[in-house]
Amino acid sequence: MIVVIGGGPAGRFAAARLGQAGREVTLVEREAIGGQCLNSGCMQVCALNDAARTMERVGDFAAAGVLEGVLHLEFPALLREMGEVQSKIRTVLDRETRAAGVEVRYGATARVDGRRIFIDDEEVEAEAVVIATGSAPAVPALPGTDLPGVYTSRTLRTMPALPERLVIAGGGVSAAEFAYIFSRLGSQVTLLARREFLGDLDPRLRRLALKELSGVEVREHTPLTAIIGSDRVEGAAFGGAAPGECQADAVLLAVGLVPQTSMVIGVEKGPRGEIVVDDRMQTSVPDVYAAGDAAGPPYLTPLARLQGVVAAENILGREMNYAPKAVPQALALANDLAFCDDGDDGIALSLPAPAGPGSFWSVPKGDTGLGTVLVDPETGALRGIWAASPGAGITATYLAEAMRQNKTVFDLEDLIDVHPLAEGVHGLFAQAARAIRERKAETEDPKTNPGER
Amino acid sequence: MIVVIGGGPAGRFAAARLGQAGREVTLVEREAIGGQCLNSGCMQVCALNDAARTMERVGDFAAAGVLEGVLHLEFPALLREMGEVQSKIRTVLDRETRAAGVEVRYGATARVDGRRIFIDDEEVEAEAVVIATGSAPAVPALPGTDLPGVYTSRTLRTMPALPERLVIAGGGVSAAEFAYIFSRLGSQVTLLARREFLGDLDPRLRRLALKELSGVEVREHTPLTAIIGSDRVEGAAFGGAAPGECQADAVLLAVGLVPQTSMVIGVEKGPRGEIVVDDRMQTSVPDVYAAGDAAGPPYLTPLARLQGVVAAENILGREMNYAPKAVPQALALANDLAFCDDGDDGIALSLPAPAGPGSFWSVPKGDTGLGTVLVDPETGALRGIWAASPGAGITATYLAEAMRQNKTVFDLEDLIDVHPLAEGVHGLFAQAARAIRERKAETEDPKTNPGER
Repeated sequence: MIVVIGGGPAGRFAAARLGQAGREVTLVEREAIGGQCLNSGCMQVCALNDAARTMERVGDFAAAGVLEGVLHLEFPALLREMGEVQSKIRTVLDRETRAAGVEVRYGATARVDGRRIFIDDEEVEAEAVVIATGSAPAVPALPGTDLPGVYTSRTLRTMPALPERLVIAGGGVSAAEFAYIFSRLGSQVTLLARREFLGDLDPRLRRLALKELSGVEVREHTPLTAIIGSDRVEGAAFGGAAPGECQADAVLLAVGLVPQTSMVIGVEKGPRGEIVVDDRMQTSVPDVYAAGDAAGPPYLTPLARLQGVVAAENILGREMNYAPKAVPQALALANDLAFCDDGDDGIALSLPAPAGPGSFWSVPKGDTGLGTVLVDPETGALRGIWAASPGAGITATYLAEAMRQNKTVFDLEDLIDVHPLAEGVHGLFAQAARAIRERKAETEDPKTNPGER
Repeated sequence: MIVVIGGGPAGRFAAARLGQAGREVTLVEREAIGGQCLNSGCMQVCALNDAARTMERVGDFAAAGVLEGVLHLEFPALLREMGEVQSKIRTVLDRETRAAGVEVRYGATARVDGRRIFIDDEEVEAEAVVIATGSAPAVPALPGTDLPGVYTSRTLRTMPALPERLVIAGGGVSAAEFAYIFSRLGSQVTLLARREFLGDLDPRLRRLALKELSGVEVREHTPLTAIIGSDRVEGAAFGGAAPGECQADAVLLAVGLVPQTSMVIGVEKGPRGEIVVDDRMQTSVPDVYAAGDAAGPPYLTPLARLQGVVAAENILGREMNYAPKAVPQALALANDLAFCDDGDDGIALSLPAPAGPGSFWSVPKGDTGLGTVLVDPETGALRGIWAASPGAGITATYLAEAMRQNKTVFDLEDLIDVHPLAEGVHGLFAQAARAIRERKAETEDPKTNPGER
């Protein structure tokens, strides 16, 4: 038997791959299949963001006189309906996993002590184990974090009502996404970022993010220092250059994730508790593998899935290494802000994104998004893309693949788009190809090209 | 001087390319820059579809108790605001075109008689001409088409109110798109299709389209035979196996486009009036080129643009042939239904699309769309894709390019997606690659692969 601990993306993909190969595999899931991704991460953000975008569009139409009447959002109903959809998806995932030949055990807890595996404290004989126990939202060691009214992404679904005044602690993608959501659903949002807000993001996307977060009070270099309240949250205290306090009905902690590995001992761990693995996803103990958030950042579902597959393939004796290149990412605000950048230099070409599906009505606000590509000025190789539009994640997915395959703008200049396309990237390749050709014609052979342009 | 007649996608791209190359070029536009695409085609559908999708989502939320209250759509305000955005885009296009060095003359009419060019009936000396006069909605020769209350895509913007009962004549993409729009905005829609509705579409997408058009009465093999009314539209009569009449406040004719070439004589034309061109976009008369809808179907903006560029390049003496391959297309309903198919056979792999941005809340209705790829079973070459999801047009755009470059599923199986992605195609490549590998292992060398699976 092979034991997979955790039914999130990493564990599920590992177990399914092993099951499909005809191996006896048991997936132990303490709570709900789908892991953080489905239950409190990607899908939760998606559900609430879709609702937030709808509310924003309705508000825009109302302001323009296109819609008349008043709508009231029933936040508890929104959470309830979200839960219904998540439950439906869990049913699908459970069925898929079992159909792959996996035995799924819910409610059981598993422990690992080096090479020894326990399920509900009973030691089991396992030829191999995949630890895919995920991560949990970090809770900073500050006064007041245990007050009612303090939430993380994991407990957010228990909010009894939409907070009138919400403080979000955090300066990264997750904090930004929640700020957009709650602001558009109707909360007054203050965001407290310890450092620069979205400091790791490309400056163009960062500017756009701030624009799409209009109405949110973003305080940078302003760490949360305490949550204030006696019976429940009443406010938040913050430090920084201008320390102070603000009122709040709720505080949402979005300060990052920590690997969830307390049930694992006897294997090497890193400083954050992440399980140390090699590029076959094997831990310091033979036949003991780890995959997904338990193995540390960057905490992305597609990489967790890939790690699960790598672990499974190596267990099956088929050598496979984990070495992802050109990983695309996105954050969801009014637009999807997507990016993929392999860190190299190049020449950036940029355009506002055009009006198209999902962005026609953003024209009056001047926020149809943007498209930017980073191109090697000599070879035309695609080095990076930054795209903001509805569906920019799709663009980033396919163009990251183009980067992985060392495609140049000359390979992509004959792109024929489906019109209208709410995406500013596709128009840049022909422009980049022409620019490089013209520059080369001018500089490389000035005599035979006597300044035709 | 070079004269370009018509400021739609074909004419604008031809003129801009010529202007950028330093040539003296005059663009003659009788009405509004942007052509049918901006003023009564793609952008109009996009604007109204975005509003329709918003109304559908609001309706779904209301039905689930997530939204309370009543919204009323002010249809005239919607058309007015759409016009504002179109006007803004016209300003941008005008600026871009002039910035490329093009002289733009509005309100003038141009005529072509063989090699002779007239602007406002004055003959001008032109070294070359590009005829990009576009197309117009077909109006069938039936009683009642001149009654008030009869519209085409071109006059739709003059509708004084949302029709309570709308009859749409047509069975193609445009009829389907308008049926979705008016149905979701609140009209009771009857669609009269002369033959099978969306008969040219892949059966999977067609089924999905019918599902997304729930509430629309689709009558197939039922041609419109007359529009009934004395002072204005009161109903429509139809033929077919069960002829009859139905009441209507308005009739929208969406039965196709016809090339608009009455101002052109002395060059060879085809049976629909389309100007006959070679693969350099030159007509039967030297130095007289045609591009875009004036040169006949398939009436797609990206191809019109490409034809404009081909005409310009050949005028500039740089040989370029028009030979597009793997052209992606889409229609916009609740999802974008996109497709690209080079007509070859293969093995189809299909999946429902997952919940993702724009489709999470479609889960309760069971319509998150679908992804299908057609793959050569021997080589794994990608032969076709059908995708229905928000943003499927982006998928089709990049995968059509992959088809053009003869990519296989083995090239695409390492795709790393941005999660969550509301698109069912990206997950199929690894699945297809594995299926082909396993089949080959089983069939090609049964002795050294003794049925491991």
